[in-house]
Amino acid sequence: MAVAEIVVVPLGTGSPSISEYVAQCLEILAKNERIKYQLTPMGTIVEGEVSDILRLVQEMHEVPFKNGALRVSTSLRLDERRDKELSMEGKVKAVLEKL
Amino acid sequence: MAVAEIVVVPLGTGSPSISEYVAQCLEILAKNERIKYQLTPMGTIVEGEVSDILRLVQEMHEVPFKNGALRVSTSLRLDERRDKELSMEGKVKAVLEKL
Amino acid sequence: MAVAEIVVVPLGTGSPSISEYVAQCLEILAKNERIKYQLTPMGTIVEGEVSDILRLVQEMHEVPFKNGALRVSTSLRLDERRDKELSMEGKVKAVLEKL
Amino acid sequence: MAVAEIVVVPLGTGSPSISEYVAQCLEILAKNERIKYQLTPMGTIVEGEVSDILRLVQEMHEVPFKNGALRVSTSLRLDERRDKELSMEGKVKAVLEKL
Repeated sequence: MAVAEIVVVPLGTGSPSISEYVAQCLEILAKNERIKYQLTPMGTIVEGEVSDILRLVQEMHEVPFKNGALRVSTSLRLDERRDKELSMEGKVKAVLEKL
Repeated sequence: MAVAEIVVVPLGTGSPSISEYVAQCLEILAKNERIKYQLTPMGTIVEGEVSDILRLVQEMHEVPFKNGALRVSTSLRLDERRDKELSMEGKVKAVLEKL
Repeated sequence: MAVAEIVVVPLGTGSPSISEYVAQCLEILAKNERIKYQLTPMGTIVEGEVSDILRLVQEMHEVPFKNGALRVSTSLRLDERRDKELSMEGKVKAVLEKL
Repeated sequence: MAVAEIVVVPLGTGSPSISEYVAQCLEILAKNERIKYQLTPMGTIVEGEVSDILRLVQEMHEVPFKNGALRVSTSLRLDERRDKELSMEGKVKAVLEKL
């Protein structure tokens, strides 16, 4: 189980707004029963198996193209531990406990 | 006003855990009245002026070194609009409204 | 065809050096006939189909685990255009022509 | 001395091309005697003191705004070691030696 952040940004669309694309990415996630997710102001954080996350990246990367964008920059940051289970909740809890 | 994400990761510390370093970064933020912040499972999101955010990056980058780390990888993603004010709350709201 | 950057970083290995892991990632690339690549001081840049690149991310993400690391942070930045073919060489050339 | 990668991307400019902005960023670098740099297909890699690099990030972040962009996404990845001097050349050499 890994925790990751995915950011999908269309380039050259003529509008500085990207929330419509992010909303459509969340709709893909809402139908995906294998991945938990959390929307943040700087990206979408997901929790799941690495292979499922990589498939999701490809699906989300397509969203702006389906909406007419000519160029898309997609970034993924993947965090995985093999000594213990990582979860979105657990990662935040581990920090808050040390404040 | 910009919204940004900062991630500070020490390398080679001998432990896979980094929550202690993140907690100390949050303590720097708690004393900084010019910057709002939100902890997420994949980084710390901040809202403030670009110059204040860049100063904060340098402070947070130092935290693992002060704790004996020999190598630190710090990443910043900065999002700024000049046609309207960006805020952490506004960015999330803009997406949720389109679901 | 997309151009991407992949960065694989093990956490908590006890040594600040990661060049051994990067070298093993390059050996995976050397056997992959579908992807061109270029090593840089901050990551490995690749050129290929998105699906091939995502498969490569999973292979490279495994390298530190195979060498005993307990935690791995892997990041991918993917750049794809559908109005014209992107290549590593073409992207640099497009900038140099404008200097 | 740190090694870093800086990527400046304008959003909503109406054109998928960003090479003009990257070229202007390189012209800033060409006048900066304190920082070495290398253009790659996925960003600009620099070598210098952290404080100089952070000042450079702010300068480069401004370039698309000066050219009429309404939104800019700038990312920085900073790599610093305190046990030995990091350089662009040294980082690549350390990997190639292990192939």
